[in-house]
Amino acid sequence: MKKMEEKILSEATVLPGGVLKVGSFLNQQIDTVFLKEIGAEIARLFEDSGATKILTVEASGIAVAVAAGMAMELPVVFAKKNMTSNMTGDVYSAGIYSFTHRVEKDIMVSKEYLPEGEKILIVDDFLAHGSALTGLIDIVKQAKCEVVGCCAVIEKGFQNGGANLRNRGYRLESLAIIDEMTDVSIIFREDGFTSLI
Amino acid sequence: MKKMEEKILSEATVLPGGVLKVGSFLNQQIDTVFLKEIGAEIARLFEDSGATKILTVEASGIAVAVAAGMAMELPVVFAKKNMTSNMTGDVYSAGIYSFTHRVEKDIMVSKEYLPEGEKILIVDDFLAHGSALTGLIDIVKQAKCEVVGCCAVIEKGFQNGGANLRNRGYRLESLAIIDEMTDVSIIFREDGFTSLI
Repeated sequence: MKKMEEKILSEATVLPGGVLKVGSFLNQQIDTVFLKEIGAEIARLFEDSGATKILTVEASGIAVAVAAGMAMELPVVFAKKNMTSNMTGDVYSAGIYSFTHRVEKDIMVSKEYLPEGEKILIVDDFLAHGSALTGLIDIVKQAKCEVVGCCAVIEKGFQNGGANLRNRGYRLESLAIIDEMTDVSIIFREDGFTSLI
Repeated sequence: MKKMEEKILSEATVLPGGVLKVGSFLNQQIDTVFLKEIGAEIARLFEDSGATKILTVEASGIAVAVAAGMAMELPVVFAKKNMTSNMTGDVYSAGIYSFTHRVEKDIMVSKEYLPEGEKILIVDDFLAHGSALTGLIDIVKQAKCEVVGCCAVIEKGFQNGGANLRNRGYRLESLAIIDEMTDVSIIFREDGFTSLI
């Protein structure tokens, strides 16, 4: 998605430790006009996927999943990181390691929202090591549902999460794939090539 | 919003301890078609507010704020409950008590996303004791911005959060106000009257 690359180049900053900061439009502040375009693009990419439900994990995945869900008219389910008093019954859970928060966490989905046989599109804002997506895939399998696709808004192609998922045979679409980044430049993967934009 | 009351009556359950469970459409699973209607209703209610930005708190406020932001074409900012490695610079913070999670927490917003003078519409999924909305109002004041309105999807009218905010002069609109609930009935406030639907 060309416009995603342009947005990253005009608004993102690279912090020490390889952290890409996109808080101005995706992660803390959300550009809702642009978010609607993100939703439409995800709908276009997965229109033939047969998805019946979208799954993400709180918190920053929610906005993207909701935008995709609105565009595809599909329900969204988000995994929680804490058990809350309004969760009842059994849950599916998986352990994930958050490199952003630097902690290992269980994520949980109430079983009632993942009935057997659903076709699940997994959506998240970032894909780096792939811990969150792998945990969500694990939950979908526990529920005897099918993963029909995975979508990340921004993939760090220089980390191994995306390659691992593709090697495992999952259909993974990322709206922008960063192959290299320093504090002065970001190189995107495009149609198999890399180019400095 | 009549349809919100109908949705609550058809899908919500009341758990012990006065917890209203709306996980099937708002809190863990999100009915995106209905969410779009929620966004449109918030836009209608606050079209004359002059709002320039919408503020909420992660996680379950995000979906509602995004729906309102899309309908109003306004950016959304969400307060975080944890400092993350992609937050930089100074933050505004306020302490809130979450009755759902039963913990006291600080919520934080990066100062850069609340520049002085913004006109803020505060949106959240639930209003009960009002701790989250009060914390968000506190943050808006610290930022020298103006609260032009507050909106809760579901207000527990039998708790004091809504009354306190209205007494303090804030324009507060709730899409459904529950005046009484037991495990077998929910009574909504309507135009000053209460009725069992």
